[in-house]
Amino acid sequence: MHGDRLLLGPGPSTPYPEAVEALARPVLGHLDPEYLALIHETGDRLRQVFRTENPLTLPVSGTGSAGMEACLASLLEPGETVIVGVNGYFGERLCEVAHRGGARVVRVEAPWGTALDPADVLAAHRAHPQAALVAVVAAETSTGVRNDVAPLGPELAQTDTLLLVDAVTALGGTPLEVDAWQIDACYSASQKCLGAPPGLAPVTLGPRAVAKMRNRTTPIHSFYLDLGLLHDYFLASPPRYHHTASSTLAYALHAGLGRLLEEGVESVWDRHARVGALLQSELPELGFSLVAPDGSRLPQLTTAVLPDGLEDGPARTRLLAEYGIEVGGGLGDLAGRAWRIGLMGHAATERSVVTLLGATRELLKA
Amino acid sequence: MHGDRLLLGPGPSTPYPEAVEALARPVLGHLDPEYLALIHETGDRLRQVFRTENPLTLPVSGTGSAGMEACLASLLEPGETVIVGVNGYFGERLCEVAHRGGARVVRVEAPWGTALDPADVLAAHRAHPQAALVAVVAAETSTGVRNDVAPLGPELAQTDTLLLVDAVTALGGTPLEVDAWQIDACYSASQKCLGAPPGLAPVTLGPRAVAKMRNRTTPIHSFYLDLGLLHDYFLASPPRYHHTASSTLAYALHAGLGRLLEEGVESVWDRHARVGALLQSELPELGFSLVAPDGSRLPQLTTAVLPDGLEDGPARTRLLAEYGIEVGGGLGDLAGRAWRIGLMGHAATERSVVTLLGATRELLKA
Repeated sequence: MHGDRLLLGPGPSTPYPEAVEALARPVLGHLDPEYLALIHETGDRLRQVFRTENPLTLPVSGTGSAGMEACLASLLEPGETVIVGVNGYFGERLCEVAHRGGARVVRVEAPWGTALDPADVLAAHRAHPQAALVAVVAAETSTGVRNDVAPLGPELAQTDTLLLVDAVTALGGTPLEVDAWQIDACYSASQKCLGAPPGLAPVTLGPRAVAKMRNRTTPIHSFYLDLGLLHDYFLASPPRYHHTASSTLAYALHAGLGRLLEEGVESVWDRHARVGALLQSELPELGFSLVAPDGSRLPQLTTAVLPDGLEDGPARTRLLAEYGIEVGGGLGDLAGRAWRIGLMGHAATERSVVTLLGATRELLKA
Repeated sequence: MHGDRLLLGPGPSTPYPEAVEALARPVLGHLDPEYLALIHETGDRLRQVFRTENPLTLPVSGTGSAGMEACLASLLEPGETVIVGVNGYFGERLCEVAHRGGARVVRVEAPWGTALDPADVLAAHRAHPQAALVAVVAAETSTGVRNDVAPLGPELAQTDTLLLVDAVTALGGTPLEVDAWQIDACYSASQKCLGAPPGLAPVTLGPRAVAKMRNRTTPIHSFYLDLGLLHDYFLASPPRYHHTASSTLAYALHAGLGRLLEEGVESVWDRHARVGALLQSELPELGFSLVAPDGSRLPQLTTAVLPDGLEDGPARTRLLAEYGIEVGGGLGDLAGRAWRIGLMGHAATERSVVTLLGATRELLKA
């Protein structure tokens, strides 16, 4: 017997039926012409979702954290400076990964649950103009806060500093424009708003980022996550062997993206916005209080402090056991006091909202 | 339309039907009790196949190369010495990954297509007794050669040097005994003799390797492949969040291992031996000449130089297009002149052998 889950946590989300169906296709070798066509088409689909023309757009064979490390490891050399926006768990992780790679980390902070001020990030850059990279999380999965990254690119594009954006929870959920916003590097994950199972991390690098990577004087410490080698493997003709990519996961991502593009990128953003607003308008009626302030609240991930009478651990256990619904717990100060509710990809529907609210009402009765 | 492939290359192999079926199960979150039970049972199954009691036995969320890098990055500190056996492509890769991580690499070589002499490896260790690690590939996927790793462990166990074995193609195909052979660290891949799709890299670390990792004075350069963090994520209770592991791939690995264990580890070794011997006895009759010498020939991967009248590129194209059969091309000196034929996991059957030989006979007629 398999538990059938409605996945409304911070990810994975319940994948599109098309993505699940695609998993069962016959496995292909990584040099099979049919696989190569699939991976090129997946790159085309990713470009449409990232809103970019970047040739170097590919799925790293790992999860979102692998995408993060691939970008930091490929773009930073030891001793270089990176300015990181930190207002949640994944901003902290950017610091940790960059530090391990030997970079000097300059932190620009905002309290958890509030948005970074882009002016603070740009001020830090004026104080550290030699920085190789500015890295910001567009959608903080730990708090449900949207960071406004759009103002950063045009300023940084006039300098030698690159802009890296974490779009793990953002991509396919809320507006993100890699080319129009002059983002040099961006990574995401298959299992959130793209509606595929976990295992792949879409990455895109623009021309300035590719040049920085090609001109580095030290080798990238990671072989597995070297985006130069991954370019030559996924995009060169003939491909230069690097690892044995999973056709199974590529099929599923390709199918999830196909479903997304059929609906249309902007329509998908609208759906996430509409469904998130519905949840966020109803939660206070049940006694929840929303953590992220109005204006920087993500529709696809809502963090809400529990009402009196709802105890986190037992309530989530009942939600999973009796209703087959997964939501996430709070992180940091909010551990044990809040839920993180994802409405992403296939799970971003009015039905998800009424199902969760209905089950929560039952829990509040008990 | 999906091409249906008989995968007889160096990997992936055609997975077990049980593994394919498992892919379609509902996606689970990485904190779901059902997922946690699955991952613990997968660890138990991996221990049976690795023939070990090591608690730290888990599937890294990446391919075999991620397993290699996870072991090297976690066990080596910058400036430490690693002795690497090099008699093929994957020995070279061990050198490359260790070098990128800042290690000093001492190479022990044998010509491609021949086996390493364990006495040479031990002599190199006597010359470099301060080496932190000796790393050897048990089954060279590039040449089809078996390296005898059994004599290394008992010698190294009397020193402070650890033994790391690459079992990407070996595990589940030919005898490998992590505990009895005193192997300190070992990694493999899901898509070869374990009969699951690609995407996961099983890794096991023994007590000496865990102690070395826990006592290191520099951080592991990779966050994503830090086996200490992965231990706390996969095996601690409660799990400490690290990344969003793919329940989809875990299901498939778990199911492939279940099928393997139902047949029995030693029976599976016997099947690979029997089927490989059948292929290797028949190929010379078609004019192929076997590359690996008798005694160090892997049953699960056979490298054979093509007979006159069979041109590599066109022949493999026809094999794939007309018969749906994938075999691999030669590497290095053997590029364009040899095939690498895998008989691994579900594809290690007499039917695979007669199918390939029958198709090859047709190609030779043309």
